[in-house]
Amino acid sequence: MGIAFKVDSEIANTSIYVCDLQLSKVYLKDDKDNPWFLLVPRKNKSEELVDLTFEEQNLLMEEITIVSEFFRKEFAPFKLNVGTLGNIVRQLHVHVIARYENDRAWPGPIWGVPATQCYTSEEIKGIISRFKDFTH
Amino acid sequence: MGIAFKVDSEIANTSIYVCDLQLSKVYLKDDKDNPWFLLVPRKNKSEELVDLTFEEQNLLMEEITIVSEFFRKEFAPFKLNVGTLGNIVRQLHVHVIARYENDRAWPGPIWGVPATQCYTSEEIKGIISRFKDFTH
Repeated sequence: MGIAFKVDSEIANTSIYVCDLQLSKVYLKDDKDNPWFLLVPRKNKSEELVDLTFEEQNLLMEEITIVSEFFRKEFAPFKLNVGTLGNIVRQLHVHVIARYENDRAWPGPIWGVPATQCYTSEEIKGIISRFKDFTH
Repeated sequence: MGIAFKVDSEIANTSIYVCDLQLSKVYLKDDKDNPWFLLVPRKNKSEELVDLTFEEQNLLMEEITIVSEFFRKEFAPFKLNVGTLGNIVRQLHVHVIARYENDRAWPGPIWGVPATQCYTSEEIKGIISRFKDFTH
């Protein structure tokens, strides 16, 4: 048995847990301007995509696709931004972000630019529930 | 036969062609601070990862891995940043960027922050040559 997987406390404390997919834990950022999910592969000591096996990389790509298709269905993004930076939180995590032509950082990158609106708890419940339906 | 693939002129004009991999054309940005490659899948009308087939997504992940491993070998990055934004150039392209703790944008995202140093033509030839050797 390996050591139990633990999500970095910065992610756990600043994002909302959504569910587990086959490889990753899914989190929602409280950013009503720009729907924003994080995928955190449940693999200890991973910091880079290349720290995953080939099979895990393909699974992660599948999970990016699931989130992307959910975003297209629910939030009509003008553009999706997908990236793994990890300059601040080193644990491997992938951002999937819905971008709009009039959003707060357009057309620049949105990392580090604070959200201007939060969700209500009802809205959060709705997004989590619809994502779970979407993946079943 | 499909329509011949054409790289967006913004990418072709501002980056240096390196080589073709199985799926993608590879370009080098002229940024000596932060080694930075672009992967441009040779598939017309693709703007998002989800516009690729499952097989193409996996190939792209493999090519991200090839570039990442080359960067680790050649440039000893403190962290890799991998992302597809496309807010300005819509044609699907993936950035693989070597980041350092003392680089010009650390720890923020580096997109949109201009390079402070260019390569010499000898350095560019060397990088291209070593990447081709690495992939053969």
